[in-house]
Formats: sequence, C-alpha cells, structure tokens
Amino acid sequence: MSLKFTHTTLGQRVLFGNGQATENLAAEVARLEAKTVMVIAGERGMELATAVAKDIDVAVWHDEVVMHVPVDVAERARTVSADNGVDLLVSVGGGSTTGLAKAISLTTGIPSIAVATTYAGSEATDVWGLTENDVKTTGSDVKVLPVAVIYDSELTLSLPVELSIASGLNGLAHCVDSLWAPNADPINAAMAAEGIRALNEGLPLIVEDSQDIHGRDLALYGAYLAAVSFASAGSGMHHKLCHILGGTFNLPHAQTHATVLPYVLAFNVDHAPEAAARMAAAFGVDDAVGGLNQLRARVNAPKALKDYGFTAEGIPAVVEQALATIPDSNPRPVTEENLTQLLTAALNGDDPATLRR
Amino acid sequence: MSLKFTHTTLGQRVLFGNGQATENLAAEVARLEAKTVMVIAGERGMELATAVAKDIDVAVWHDEVVMHVPVDVAERARTVSADNGVDLLVSVGGGSTTGLAKAISLTTGIPSIAVATTYAGSEATDVWGLTENDVKTTGSDVKVLPVAVIYDSELTLSLPVELSIASGLNGLAHCVDSLWAPNADPINAAMAAEGIRALNEGLPLIVEDSQDIHGRDLALYGAYLAAVSFASAGSGMHHKLCHILGGTFNLPHAQTHATVLPYVLAFNVDHAPEAAARMAAAFGVDDAVGGLNQLRARVNAPKALKDYGFTAEGIPAVVEQALATIPDSNPRPVTEENLTQLLTAALNGDDPATLRR
Repeated sequence: MSLKFTHTTLGQRVLFGNGQATENLAAEVARLEAKTVMVIAGERGMELATAVAKDIDVAVWHDEVVMHVPVDVAERARTVSADNGVDLLVSVGGGSTTGLAKAISLTTGIPSIAVATTYAGSEATDVWGLTENDVKTTGSDVKVLPVAVIYDSELTLSLPVELSIASGLNGLAHCVDSLWAPNADPINAAMAAEGIRALNEGLPLIVEDSQDIHGRDLALYGAYLAAVSFASAGSGMHHKLCHILGGTFNLPHAQTHATVLPYVLAFNVDHAPEAAARMAAAFGVDDAVGGLNQLRARVNAPKALKDYGFTAEGIPAVVEQALATIPDSNPRPVTEENLTQLLTAALNGDDPATLRR
Repeated sequence: MSLKFTHTTLGQRVLFGNGQATENLAAEVARLEAKTVMVIAGERGMELATAVAKDIDVAVWHDEVVMHVPVDVAERARTVSADNGVDLLVSVGGGSTTGLAKAISLTTGIPSIAVATTYAGSEATDVWGLTENDVKTTGSDVKVLPVAVIYDSELTLSLPVELSIASGLNGLAHCVDSLWAPNADPINAAMAAEGIRALNEGLPLIVEDSQDIHGRDLALYGAYLAAVSFASAGSGMHHKLCHILGGTFNLPHAQTHATVLPYVLAFNVDHAPEAAARMAAAFGVDDAVGGLNQLRARVNAPKALKDYGFTAEGIPAVVEQALATIPDSNPRPVTEENLTQLLTAALNGDDPATLRR
C-alpha cells in the first residue's frame, strides 16, 4: 500500500478564546496594520458587532446582509468598500455575513477577519457563493479565505440548544463524510477525527446546559475542524444523499443530515476499516456505529425521515439521482438495491446496524 | 475549563506520492506559471535533482550547498537568482538545501518548491537559519515557507536504516514535545498524534526492510507532521534538555533525542492526562510510556547517555541550565531533585517508568 495524495493547507490564523473576541480583534487589526476598517454584520447582529469592535477604529459599518449573498447586495457592499478606501473587512456573524465579506474580497482583494458566531464554518474555507435570479453560483478562491478567524464561545451562548445540536451534528456529518470523500487524505482525516472528538464531547454538555462554556468551546472548535476537513476532502456519499433529499423533497437541512448520517456510517463502516478505527477512537469507543448512536441518544437527535415529510414513494427518485452522483471513492459500492435499503431504514428510523456487512 | 489558543496555520500544498516526484513537480511548476526556474541541490544530490526536474525547463542549476547556510553562500545564491531573473526556486534535498532556498526567498521574495529527500522537516516550516562567523541566526518569516512540498518515498530509499530510525525518532520527539510546549494547542496536538501514529507504524517496517515503501511513506509523512506541529508549538522540556546536552557536552544529536525522549515522557505523562490519552491512542495501546518502549525495542533505539560520552559529573551543569530554560508550560514542575533523577536514569538507561508519579 502506498500513500498518495495532494493536500492544500489553507493559511489562516485562528484566535480562540472565551470572552476574548474584542481583545483578539484589536490585536489582529493592529497586526495587519489596517487603516480603514469596514465592519459587516446583519441588522440583528450589529449590537454584538459594535461591542466586539469597540477597541478598534471603524470607518464604515455595513448591515445589509442577506442569505445566500444576492449579487446586488454584494455589489452595493463592494461599492461601499471602494468609496471609503477600505483596507480590511471585519465580519461578525454566521454564514451569510462571512459570505458577504467573501464576495467583497473576491473582486477587490481586500482581506477580511471573520468573527464567527455560529457553527456554520464558512470562515474556515475558501469557498464563496453568490445568488442571482434564484441561481446560486459557488467557487473557491484563496482570496476569500479570511486571514484570521476569531472564535469566542460567549458570542454563541444565544444559539438555541436545538439549533446548536442540529448544526453540531451537521458538522459531525462533515467530519465523517470527509473520511471517504473524493479528496480524502490522512491530513483531512486527522482533522476530522479531532472534530468528531470535540463535537462528541461538547454537544451533550450543551444539551445539559446551554450556557456551558466548555461545551460551547468544544462545539465551536469542532465546527471549525469540520469545515476545514470537509472543504479539503469534498462531498462524499452522505452529502450527495442529503443534497438530493433537500433539493428534490425540500426536507429541512439540519434534520436531514442528522437523520441520514448514522445510516451512511453503518452502510460504509465495515468497508473502510481505517476510517472506522479513527472514528471509534475519536468517539472513545470500540465501534464507530455504537459511538454515534450513543451520542445521538444523548442529544436527542432526529431519528426518521418520515418525521420530516419524506415517504417511500420518494425513494426511487433519490436512488436514481444518488447512483449518478455518489463518488467512486465511496468505500462500499452503491447499487439500486442497497441504496433502497438504506433509504428505507432512514425513512422508518430502523436500527442503522441492519445495514452493516 | 475553557479553550484558549492562537494557532497560525501555514498555507502550503503537499504533494505526496511514491514515484510521483517528477510528475508532481512538473504539475506544480505549471500551476505556478513559473518562467525561469532555478534548481538547487548539493553536489551529491544533483543527479537525483536532474532526474526529478527532467520534465520542467530549468534556467539555472545551482549546487553550492553548505550545512547551516553560511551567509556568503546565501549571498552568492541570491546573486545567481537575481542575475538570471529567476521566478521560482526548486530545492531537492534535505535541510541544508531547503535552507538555502529559504535564504534566497527571505531577501528576494522568490517562492520555492521543496522536494524533500530526508526526514528533516524544514520544508514544512517558515523557519530560516543563516550562519556567520560560527554564529547561527534563525528567524521565522512566511516568505520562506515553500509554496509546495513534494514527498516521494522513492527518493528516501537510500537513507541508511540507522539514520532513518534516528531521524524518525527525532521526529517522534518533536511530536511528543509539541504536546506540552509553550504554544501547544489542540490543532498542533491532533497533527502531532497523527505523526506519532505514522512513525510508530512506519519505523519498524523500515527496520525489517529498508526498501519497504509503506514504511518509508509513513516515516516521511510522520516527519512532515512532526515539523508542522513542532514549528507551531515551540520547544518543550525535551528539546531544551537535548539542546543543553548537545551544546555543552557535544553529544550526538539524533542519539541524544532518541535516548532522552522516553524519560521526558515518563516524567510528564501522569501530569498531562489529555496528552497521555492522545499519545496512547496514537501508539495504539493503553499507556503512552509502554507504547514508546515497545516502539523503541522494535527499532533498537539508543538506550543510555553513557554510551555517548555523558557522565554523572555533567548532570549538575545540565540541571542548572535546564531549570532556567524549561518552559513554564511543562506539565510537571521541574526541580533540581527531579531533573537530577531524570538525567541519572537517562545516563544509565534505567527503566523510564521509575520517573513516573
């Protein structure tokens, strides 16, 4: 067996510390010697952004943030940055806010610092997205990668528990799927395993107490690692299935991910012994499937696709699309028969272990 | 407990593949759109460099490579690159060769690709070093980080087994020490654990068969991770001790590292439960000290400092210097008494476990 991979490590500073966002932001702005800073936050996030930015000079505040970054919104933000001679963007928020800063960086080359307040993970990737006439275009460009990310669990305390868990399990799915995605490599796998370890420890703490800082730290850190490993490894079987379920049947994103993950894991695990061993170690148990089940029970994870409006009639259409899109890198070859079994089990919330072999 | 760290991830491409160096180098040179390439290799390495570079246009071949990068050697290489309008450096070799390319990048900003042929690890760091009048100056600058590293185990097959093991154990020491170094953080720890895993699996394979490609792959990959984690985490107790032993008593570098490591590990392990758990998992056993001992037995690692000329008379001087330099981050507080115990045990090759508590 020979080791063969090409891995691109994205250069970025990560400043992690509870209650440290204001201080860390001021230090980074000073380090970058920025003169004209534009702070971006959604209307509802502006109060938080104002507090985080209180120790830096801000030339422009910009609060027109819209989901999926419509092109006209991006254009207006670019004009504002150009008109003011902005030399550094600071985004404070989740994926949409980070995404707007990325849209500006993409065409202007102005660097950004991202202060992340959710588990979206966009701040750790070089992927950008823009929407025009309901069509989303995405791409990757190192120019849009924030030069620094600031993580402060205090800023995430208001994330509701249910959303935190769904979002955390989505991160977990990124970690697991990156182990057999098309560009899977051992560096991604090491980061993904660390992400599983952190999420597995952190998410139950949040369920017990939504204000638990250690739990929030671990979830935020795990979400960062999930983004890093997933962005490098690409979409595997899990994400292809969820993309179809979400796109064709309009199932809710986070719940779909949380429900499908154990089935994809059980489906693949015995065909990917190295990934299985890494996952089991990260879950702190002997068996990855058991480890994930244990976590899902502790966080009351969603269990069956039927609870979200999916029905058996939809299965053949999903299977057809899935057969065409699941990457060849998947450890277990997919067939009409075994995909139908998988989706039937996920539909009904059957024990995932029935899919193993 | 709250998570607090600042981690700088260095952006770099890693192209890993046995027998792929020529192809990967050509692809990277094309990707970077380089027009005027300067290839750097030592005299003895030039034949190998010529083979690796056979599919690219080379404007200049440069073979004046000297250990520790003397300033005048660096100056001549800089002049050659400037006179020829070089826009990309390609180094093929170990630490000295990579170091010369870094010296050019430092003052000219010309980017480099490093083709690594040893386990030195310099290619994965932003640390440069220059020597003038026997004084070595080092620093770190992102400009000297190679934009891409090419690893090809075939190029390492001629490394003698003994040197491979010593160098591999040095890498292992980097991994272990990075778990409690001043800038230790969980990202470094994840990379270090992956490095331990790879070296622990790879080094015994090389002892069994020096031409074992899987063993060579794992050792090379582990050495890369060791460099990444160590460069980020900084020097811990182990490296401070070895630096004193090497500097004051002129003990051989690799053997000193290989001998001292199990004692530092046993000394600290019970005071660093999280690091201990990570290491044990990486060694694939329940106890990190036992895991390292097992590996050392399999690779016939050096056992006692007395075999390399160290004597009990030297211990007080080492203790005095060590007390002043071992970082406060060390898990177990160091005292004259416990450092004397540690060095006495390492001197005589006693069972490291005697240092635990």
